[in-house]
Amino acid sequence: MTLSRRRLLGAGAAAVGMGALGAACGAPAATPVPDGVVPFRGEHQAGIVTPAQDRLHFVSLDVVTADRAEVADLLRRWTAAAERMTAGAETTPGGATGGNPNSPPDDTGEALGLPPAALTLTFGVGASLFAKLGLDPSLVPPALAALPPFRGDQLDPALSGGDLCVQACSDDPQVAVHAVRNLVRMGFGVTAVRWSQLGFGRTSSTSTSQATPRNLFGFKDGTHNVKAEDPDDLREQVWVAPGDGPAWLDGGTYLVARRIRMHVEIWDRTSLAEQETIIGRTKGVGAPLGGTAEFDLADYAAVDGTGEPRIAQNAHIRLASAQALGGVKILRRGYNFVDGSDGQGHLDAGLFFVAFMRDPQAQFVPMQRALADADVLMEYIEHTGSAVFACPAGLGGGGYWGQSLLEA
Amino acid sequence: MTLSRRRLLGAGAAAVGMGALGAACGAPAATPVPDGVVPFRGEHQAGIVTPAQDRLHFVSLDVVTADRAEVADLLRRWTAAAERMTAGAETTPGGATGGNPNSPPDDTGEALGLPPAALTLTFGVGASLFAKLGLDPSLVPPALAALPPFRGDQLDPALSGGDLCVQACSDDPQVAVHAVRNLVRMGFGVTAVRWSQLGFGRTSSTSTSQATPRNLFGFKDGTHNVKAEDPDDLREQVWVAPGDGPAWLDGGTYLVARRIRMHVEIWDRTSLAEQETIIGRTKGVGAPLGGTAEFDLADYAAVDGTGEPRIAQNAHIRLASAQALGGVKILRRGYNFVDGSDGQGHLDAGLFFVAFMRDPQAQFVPMQRALADADVLMEYIEHTGSAVFACPAGLGGGGYWGQSLLEA
Ligand code: HEM
Ligand code: HEM
Repeated sequence: MTLSRRRLLGAGAAAVGMGALGAACGAPAATPVPDGVVPFRGEHQAGIVTPAQDRLHFVSLDVVTADRAEVADLLRRWTAAAERMTAGAETTPGGATGGNPNSPPDDTGEALGLPPAALTLTFGVGASLFAKLGLDPSLVPPALAALPPFRGDQLDPALSGGDLCVQACSDDPQVAVHAVRNLVRMGFGVTAVRWSQLGFGRTSSTSTSQATPRNLFGFKDGTHNVKAEDPDDLREQVWVAPGDGPAWLDGGTYLVARRIRMHVEIWDRTSLAEQETIIGRTKGVGAPLGGTAEFDLADYAAVDGTGEPRIAQNAHIRLASAQALGGVKILRRGYNFVDGSDGQGHLDAGLFFVAFMRDPQAQFVPMQRALADADVLMEYIEHTGSAVFACPAGLGGGGYWGQSLLEA
Repeated sequence: MTLSRRRLLGAGAAAVGMGALGAACGAPAATPVPDGVVPFRGEHQAGIVTPAQDRLHFVSLDVVTADRAEVADLLRRWTAAAERMTAGAETTPGGATGGNPNSPPDDTGEALGLPPAALTLTFGVGASLFAKLGLDPSLVPPALAALPPFRGDQLDPALSGGDLCVQACSDDPQVAVHAVRNLVRMGFGVTAVRWSQLGFGRTSSTSTSQATPRNLFGFKDGTHNVKAEDPDDLREQVWVAPGDGPAWLDGGTYLVARRIRMHVEIWDRTSLAEQETIIGRTKGVGAPLGGTAEFDLADYAAVDGTGEPRIAQNAHIRLASAQALGGVKILRRGYNFVDGSDGQGHLDAGLFFVAFMRDPQAQFVPMQRALADADVLMEYIEHTGSAVFACPAGLGGGGYWGQSLLEA
């Protein structure tokens, strides 16, 4: 993966390799970092506006202790390990410290010798954590309230929720899996895996420097997304601002995850014209209907010769557009998955939808409600998992994951 | 992925890119092919001695008709599609033929614009196919008999068996998934998915041109494997020879697949010294115990100062070695997997073991029996799926997948 080295954002921070992006968003002048290393510390967490890496391993964990100090201790150790792994610090078969051959290695070793390949680790806390640790109810952000049920939801509780999450993204799946697995290992006795999801291919672009990939319905996905290069969108739509809620989350964001099963075999029997009408874009170049190039702006007012709107009233992109939703946008950062088969002769394939936003209640909820109620795409998909996590600001000023909350 | 361009094998065929390997093994002089394209047709099927690609999508299918002509028709169409996809032939959103916008596209589109990234598609038939299609019992190769149960087997029938299989390997997972999905789509009404497995990272080398990757226990895997560059091993251990069984399989091979769950959290609590004793190699460079470099030959007779064998009597590599098994070897070509979590707080991770051999009864069975009975590794793993397929010779002489069997 190569990225053009160019100036990013109005701030004028010199962007060096892909690594600088995370740090460039309003943080102090970025120091050059080795290619393929995304800085772990910054004003915001990495893995959000970082150009979407190719592979994902996402894990949701339950905390199995009520002891806040034990959790804080784990989060401190996790932070050190995350910083080490994202930096690609060399380890030995015994682990980072060299280790004693008669002790278990302090690194599991399957990424020995591999570069971090843009590894980012993004941390979040779920609403269920607060009561479990006896945290003050005033610390629960109102925007972290449970999502309402949506039409067609087929949510499996075993694939939903969680007290903590870690999103590992890398261009090398072995590196992403290794990172999650080591954090899980370290959490033994304090956390247990609730669910985990591998994503084999990205379905979004989060930077104008990236080409747009395709999802499993064959369409380009991520064309009209909130991107790292738009500071206004990031400020208004992604980062939690002072006053939005409890101060511990200032500079953070919310992560909404939805495991969406895609009934590819039904979609595959739909005509090309119908597929394009449902999405509102062409399948080839990904242009909005009525336009010609991928990044042409959708013209929702345009009509064809018979007076019919070029982009159908219930086209996916119209229903989800800022125009239809009073200016609301989200930063999508999802991945394709195939989890074997469904036992009925079909692949269990779909989109692991991940999006970041300033307020799920004000952004995801109206958007998903509009889609659930009117989107023809709903006939081809099924939401089978759901979770919301609050992701604190970055650790540019020092400290450990979750410290702003646990020491609030 | 870059490969040194060099002469391979004694035959002296000029190897061009990775593509030539498949064709170079005893086939007529290879014609140069574009980088990243592995020739579909050759003396043997591609995807066996082809340098192991990074990603796997494996599908096992049940045939849902008893009509042999319908199956032959599908296999003809599959062959044409496989040839097209592995060649990276450009398609349009309507599919290979351009398509009619009012018909379903004849390609699902999610790999539009992607190069084939060394895509290979390898086809096999299971023992259950013969009775289903009323094929003459004399056509069933004795070596395709069901595997005996092994100690510790925890096989799930839903992850085992199948009438047909397709192994898709590519350096791009989207390309491998796309290929399987299109074949599945084309099979509608004739075949149904029985099980499918994604492998995110290879755990073997099948060519001396490749570096050895690591499995999820952190060890290099594939060091001492049958490799493409050893024509004697291929002839003796991999390719079915005339007289071995029914003639339709001459020049073919058998594929044994085992889904092996690895209890990584138990392994992770074992000391480095113990891990190395269990495998019989060092974790860092992967040298046999007593040796110093990865490709040093294991010295099973060597003893330490106290007279103890350097490589334990029940070390994994000793039990599985040709020395212990009267000369038997197999070509391993497996992949790491993570299939979410197991509902008990752990990752559902492991090795999707794939191996090719001339006779499973004479090779896999004694090897796996030795491991099941004595390998300490068994305390950390669990075989959860199993299948054996007969993979016919390549289609260098023309024809379609399975033709030698269906028209025998
Ligand atoms: C499997 C389910 C889904 C599929 C296949 C899908 C596919 C697409 C495609 C092809 C586009 C056009 C390209 C682009 O701009 O990215 C798009 C746009 C979009 N989608 Fe989805 N999507 C899915 C689910 C969702 C969900 C659950 C949401 C949020 C609740 C969502 C929100 C959006 C938004 C905001 C846009 C951009 C709209 C605009 O142009 O302003 N999508 N989607
Ligand atoms: C999760 C299960 C397994 C793990 C973690 C594992 C791991 C390893 C490792 C680390 C090596 C040494 C490096 C190498 O030469 O490739 C090895 C060698 C080998 N393994 Fe396994 N293995 C597993 C299952 C199996 C099974 C099921 C078989 C066959 C029944 C098998 C057959 C072999 C053979 C033939 C060798 C080479 C032995 C030699 O040096 O001659 N392995 N394995």
